[in-house]
Amino acid sequence: MQKYDTIIVGLGPSGLSAAIYTARAKLQTLVLGKKEESQLWLAHAIENYFGVESMQGKDMLELGIKQAERFKAKIKETEVINLKQKDNQFIIKTVDGEEFTGKTIILATGMPIKSSGIKNEDKFAGRGVHYCVVCDGFFYKDKKVAVIGNSNYAAEQALELLTFTKDVTIISNGKEFKFDQKYKDALDKNKIKLMPDKIISFEGDKKMQNLKTKTAELNFDGVYMAIGSAGAADFARKFGIDTKGNIIVADREGKTNVPGIYAAGTCTGTVSQVASTVGDGCIAGMSVIKKLKEKELYVDYG
Amino acid sequence: MQKYDTIIVGLGPSGLSAAIYTARAKLQTLVLGKKEESQLWLAHAIENYFGVESMQGKDMLELGIKQAERFKAKIKETEVINLKQKDNQFIIKTVDGEEFTGKTIILATGMPIKSSGIKNEDKFAGRGVHYCVVCDGFFYKDKKVAVIGNSNYAAEQALELLTFTKDVTIISNGKEFKFDQKYKDALDKNKIKLMPDKIISFEGDKKMQNLKTKTAELNFDGVYMAIGSAGAADFARKFGIDTKGNIIVADREGKTNVPGIYAAGTCTGTVSQVASTVGDGCIAGMSVIKKLKEKELYVDYG
Repeated sequence: MQKYDTIIVGLGPSGLSAAIYTARAKLQTLVLGKKEESQLWLAHAIENYFGVESMQGKDMLELGIKQAERFKAKIKETEVINLKQKDNQFIIKTVDGEEFTGKTIILATGMPIKSSGIKNEDKFAGRGVHYCVVCDGFFYKDKKVAVIGNSNYAAEQALELLTFTKDVTIISNGKEFKFDQKYKDALDKNKIKLMPDKIISFEGDKKMQNLKTKTAELNFDGVYMAIGSAGAADFARKFGIDTKGNIIVADREGKTNVPGIYAAGTCTGTVSQVASTVGDGCIAGMSVIKKLKEKELYVDYG
Repeated sequence: MQKYDTIIVGLGPSGLSAAIYTARAKLQTLVLGKKEESQLWLAHAIENYFGVESMQGKDMLELGIKQAERFKAKIKETEVINLKQKDNQFIIKTVDGEEFTGKTIILATGMPIKSSGIKNEDKFAGRGVHYCVVCDGFFYKDKKVAVIGNSNYAAEQALELLTFTKDVTIISNGKEFKFDQKYKDALDKNKIKLMPDKIISFEGDKKMQNLKTKTAELNFDGVYMAIGSAGAADFARKFGIDTKGNIIVADREGKTNVPGIYAAGTCTGTVSQVASTVGDGCIAGMSVIKKLKEKELYVDYG
């Protein structure tokens, strides 16, 4: 397993800004993410960023990657699928099955995942509607559970649930299933059921008991939300990081309430601007440097 | 008097970043300051700023000025000497005698003023050692007072004190006096005394009574600190803006506790990095836009 001082999750301006700082301070730095998932990737022309007259979003991201690599940051364009803690280290698993350990983590995963749009999700959160298999899977031993989502991340969650129960269904909620082949094979092998139905609401009394679709009412003991890629909020829920809705609570130094885990950029509620997210990344990077180098401050204007 | 939606004090990366935002949102924007006073001016090569491979500090500042001007921000390279509030508007006076009114102010004056190094300054703060003539001048009616400083800002403070007393001395504290001709003339005309002595400590019992120099102990009823150019902390003290030491307290939206006054960059304690101060400026600029346009949010990634 490859070991790093810091692993940055998110390949956007915030994560790359953090990487430029940590790598330049000679910390072993790994950045994991997909640049195409950064909002910046789609920006035609950035003209409101001090010091850059006009640049296309794509070009700016490519340049940022080049900058981080110049200082020896390792960039891997991949999807992070799991994050665990073990013996004071964090272990990150990617969709390719690779695992990396980091002394610190910077979450810079971008905009929080959009709401599922399913009625009563909030009402039953923690009472039949869950977000973290590791945290809550135990309560569903030998029960009938569903994972709601259509991606590799949903598949990973479903496979994780097998520790607790064999009766697992993935519901794509009206979307197309998009699994890599190895996930397809694993789901098939483990007899995980796939349903494309769109869910309208969660129903129940004190606890969620049924999923209502347009045509039916389906009974499940519990559901796990895994919509889209794994976002900051998903990791946050795994580690008990304070959140406000889907936004991670980080202080002005980018620290979350969990020692060793930092957060930066729009996943912390920072406005979606290159300037503000780059600023956030710089601050989180410097906090990691400060922590690992036990220095008071890393001042280097040049 | 020229009227603006927002007046930004400070011609560094933070102030210019704010200006790019407010001007681009079609707010009448004025930036006042001296680019040579920005820490960035002295930076040889900035290589840790996402999106810019390598650039000299000077060039980056010049480019930032060009960017702000392109969106019709007005830049005036001058020194701000006073800031007042009148009828819900702010009035800013420059060293050239010009006055400008602004609906909002963004303080981006850079690093807080260094400590005077004079012993007991903190001990007697508010009790013989003061920072704001407008606030505390009244208590020194017909008393013997000193202004400590060597610049136009110190001269302006001394001239303001004439409203209350004729016995005013400016002590340069070991530095060379640097006044523009018009201040020299005004000081001369009003018989303001000049002393170059270096002060070692303030002495007194419950209140400051004497200034101790290497060779003498001089009696003064009160002193006003006006070291360097007028900084954010000086303006802060005039308006009752919350400070921690010499640092302005601003929330995550750049708001101070005084409605209409915002702050950004190193004067708020943000680390001295282009990335972090540019981020701050963006956020303060967007807060001003939000306030003046009464919009929920100004989202424009491009």
